[in-house]
Amino acid sequence: MSYTIAVIGGTGPQGRGLGYRLAMAGHTVIIGSRDAARAADKAEEIRAKIDGPATITGDENAAAAAGADVVLLAVPWEGHAELVTALAPALRGKTVISCVNPLGFDEHGPYGLTLEESAAEEAQRLVPEATVVGSFHHVAALTLWKTQGPVDHDDVLVCGDDAEAKALVMDLATAVTGKRGIDAGALRLARQLEPLTAVLININKKYKTRSGLAITGVKELAPSGIGETV
Amino acid sequence: MSYTIAVIGGTGPQGRGLGYRLAMAGHTVIIGSRDAARAADKAEEIRAKIDGPATITGDENAAAAAGADVVLLAVPWEGHAELVTALAPALRGKTVISCVNPLGFDEHGPYGLTLEESAAEEAQRLVPEATVVGSFHHVAALTLWKTQGPVDHDDVLVCGDDAEAKALVMDLATAVTGKRGIDAGALRLARQLEPLTAVLININKKYKTRSGLAITGVKELAPSGIGETV
Repeated sequence: MSYTIAVIGGTGPQGRGLGYRLAMAGHTVIIGSRDAARAADKAEEIRAKIDGPATITGDENAAAAAGADVVLLAVPWEGHAELVTALAPALRGKTVISCVNPLGFDEHGPYGLTLEESAAEEAQRLVPEATVVGSFHHVAALTLWKTQGPVDHDDVLVCGDDAEAKALVMDLATAVTGKRGIDAGALRLARQLEPLTAVLININKKYKTRSGLAITGVKELAPSGIGETV
Repeated sequence: MSYTIAVIGGTGPQGRGLGYRLAMAGHTVIIGSRDAARAADKAEEIRAKIDGPATITGDENAAAAAGADVVLLAVPWEGHAELVTALAPALRGKTVISCVNPLGFDEHGPYGLTLEESAAEEAQRLVPEATVVGSFHHVAALTLWKTQGPVDHDDVLVCGDDAEAKALVMDLATAVTGKRGIDAGALRLARQLEPLTAVLININKKYKTRSGLAITGVKELAPSGIGETV
C-alpha cells in the first residue's frame, strides 16, 4: 500500500533520511518546512539521490500536513507543542508518527529530559482526533541517507494505542530499513524509546560510529497481539 | 582478574542468572538474601548446575556485601532505598553494580516509573563513598540461566561516572555473556537504561519470546574514551 506522507521538519537530517527512504520505496513524500522554498530545495536534493521514479515535493509544514494521509513529525523538541497545536487542523483523523526526541545536552553530553509525558503523548493530548504512533527514534539519520540498500541490522520499535495505526507504521518500517517494525507496546512506552536516543549518541561519540538498536530473540514477523487493541 | 562478587537479592531470577554466569566464569560468588538459609539453598542450586569447579556460597545480604570486592544489586525497586541505606557500611569503597529496574505494572503491562533519578543514581547518592555503575538491566534472567554457552547476541550496556569501575563492569560482562560490555555513558544514562526493560517485557509478551538488546555499528572492543573520566 502506498501513502502520501508529509515529513514535518523534513529539512533536518532525520526528516531527510526518512523522506529519502520512504520516497525510494514508492510512497509519495511531501517535505515540510516553515519555509516552503527550503522544503522544495530539500525535496529536490532527495529526489536527485534516487535512481528511478519517485514523487517528492516540498511545502510549508501546514500545507504539507494537509495534503498527506500520514504525517511524520521529525521536528526538534523545542517548539514541539506550539508546532503541533498550529498543525492540529491538518492532523485530525490521520495517523501521525512521532520520532521526536526530547533530549538535553550539556558538557557531559546528551541526556533524556525528565518529563511527565513523552513527545508522542504530548502530540496525542494536543490533537486527540489524530492517532499518534511513536517510532523511528533510533535509526541514525546518516545511516538512512548514506547506506546503499537495506539497513535491516537495525530494528524499528513502534509504540501506540491503536493496533491498526501501529501495524501501518510497522509496515512503513519495511520501506525504511527493509525489515518490519517491532511492536514495542502502548504509546506511553515512547517515554522509554525517545530518550534512549541519548544513549546511542553517547555510544556514537565514544566508539566513533553510528550505532543503532536491534532486538534479539524476536523471530516472528507479526506479533501475537496484532489486531487487538491495547 | 577474578573477584569476589556479592549478588544482593541473589535468590531472584536476575540474581540467580547473573550469579550462575559469574561463578561459571571463575569469580567467587556470594548469593545474598534477607534470609541466610534461603541464600545458601540458592547457592547450592546454582552450584549444582555448574560442571567443574566453582565457588558459590550464600549469606545474609549485609554479610555477603561485607565479604565482597564487588557488590551487585539485583533487588526490586520497592524497598531499594532502605536496603541500600542499610548496606551502606559494607558498600563504601567498593564498586557497586546496579541492575535495578524501577518499573510499574498495570492492566496495560509494564512501564517505566517517572522518577527524578534512576535507581543507580539513588544508590550513588545514598552511599557517596561507593562507586556505582549501572548495568545488566536487559539480558533476560532466564536466558542467562537456561542458555548453554555464550549469550553474545545480546549487548550489555554499562553506564557510570568512574572510568575504572566502568571498565571493570565491561569486563565482567564478558564473563556473563561472552562479549565485552558497551560504554553507554555517564551514570545518569541509567535513567534511560533502567525503564527500557519495560519495552523488552512488552515485546516478550507480544512475541512470546525472551527478547534482548543489541547495539549495531559498534565494532571496537574498547571505547575511545577508556581511561578518561567522564
